[in-house]
Amino acid sequence: MHGLKRERGILFVISGPSGVGKNSVLTQLLKEVPGLCYSVSATTRPPRTGEVDGVNYFFMSKEEFLRKVGTGDFLEHEEYVGNLYGTPRGYVEEKLGEGYDIAMDIECRGAAQIKRMMPEAVLIFLTPPSIEDLKARLLGRSTDSPEVIEKRIRKAEVEMGEMYKYDYYVVNDELELAIEDIKKIMWAERLKVARLAKPSVTK
Amino acid sequence: MHGLKRERGILFVISGPSGVGKNSVLTQLLKEVPGLCYSVSATTRPPRTGEVDGVNYFFMSKEEFLRKVGTGDFLEHEEYVGNLYGTPRGYVEEKLGEGYDIAMDIECRGAAQIKRMMPEAVLIFLTPPSIEDLKARLLGRSTDSPEVIEKRIRKAEVEMGEMYKYDYYVVNDELELAIEDIKKIMWAERLKVARLAKPSVTK
Repeated sequence: MHGLKRERGILFVISGPSGVGKNSVLTQLLKEVPGLCYSVSATTRPPRTGEVDGVNYFFMSKEEFLRKVGTGDFLEHEEYVGNLYGTPRGYVEEKLGEGYDIAMDIECRGAAQIKRMMPEAVLIFLTPPSIEDLKARLLGRSTDSPEVIEKRIRKAEVEMGEMYKYDYYVVNDELELAIEDIKKIMWAERLKVARLAKPSVTK
Repeated sequence: MHGLKRERGILFVISGPSGVGKNSVLTQLLKEVPGLCYSVSATTRPPRTGEVDGVNYFFMSKEEFLRKVGTGDFLEHEEYVGNLYGTPRGYVEEKLGEGYDIAMDIECRGAAQIKRMMPEAVLIFLTPPSIEDLKARLLGRSTDSPEVIEKRIRKAEVEMGEMYKYDYYVVNDELELAIEDIKKIMWAERLKVARLAKPSVTK
C-alpha cells in the first residue's frame, strides 16, 4: 500500500450473541472485500457428500484433534453435538504470513479464546439494536420449542455483557450498514502504524 | 448511535513532516465531516484586524500564558517567531465532553506532547509517498533560500522517523484519497468499544 509494507495480514473475528446474524454478515463480507479469506476449521465430524478436505474443513480423527489441542495447535476449539471443531493456528498463521486478512464468525466463548491466543486479532462484536429485537429474531426464525428458545434468549442476554471485552462494536440493524461499518474498521486497522513492517518507509 | 452512547468525543491529531500538507488535509476534513470541530489555539501574538478572541485564537498576555503552562493548562505549547502558541486543555476537554470530535494539525513535537498529556488522543501521521516526493514539494513550493530549504528537508527527514510513535499512517499522495483514509479511521475509532459509555447497551 503506497510503498509501505505490512508485517502480515489481520485476523478479524466477528462474534456476538446467538441470533444476531454473524454468519450473514461474514458471508456478505467475503463477497464484498477483495482478498479477504475465510478461516477453514478443523473437525472430527465425517465429511458429507461433496465436502473437500482443506476447503470446507480439515477433517481429522478425534485422536489427531486432541493431540493438536495438547500441542496448542488450535486458536480455539469446542464440542458440538458430539463432534469437535477448532480453528487451526497453523492455517491462520500461514495465511496471515502471506499477507491475507482473514475473517471468521464464532461464538463469544471461542472469540475470547482466540484473543487470549492471538492478542493482535481484531474482535468485532455484532450487537442487535436492543435485547427486545434479539428476542424477536430468535422467536421469529426458530422452529424450536419454547423451552429451547427461552434458553437461547437467556444465553444471548449473558453474551451481550461480553461486548466490553471486544475491540469494536457494530450494530446489526440493517445488514448493509453493518457491512459498511466493518469494512471501515478493516480499512482503518490496515492503516495502523503498529501493523507496519519495521523499520521505516520504503523509498 | 443506535442506542449506544459514547463517553465523549475523540481528539484527532494530524501531524507529519514539514511540507506534507497537514493544513490542506485538515481544512478539507473540517469541510467534509459534519460536527467535527477545530481546536482553537491560544497565543500571545496580538490580534490582527478582524480576528476574534475565542474564534481565531484565545488571545492572552505572555504572563497569563506562562501561568497556564505552569498549571498544566496546555496540551502542548511552543514558541514561534517570538510568540507563544498552545492548545488549551480546557477548551478541548469541554468540546470532547459535549460529544464533539476535534481535529487539529500540528508539528510532530507538539503531537508527541499531546499524546503524553492525553493518551486517548488518536495520532495520525501524514506521510509523503517517499522522501524524494517530500523534497520535491519543499523545493517546489518554497520561495525561501536554498539554505532554509535544505534545513527544512533535513528536519523533515528526521520527522519521518517519528511515524512509529503514531497510531495510524496515511499517505498523502492524492488529497481525496488521504481524506477518505482519515474519514474511515474516524469512523472506526467511533466504533471502539473502549470509547462507549459503560455499562451496557440501552434497551
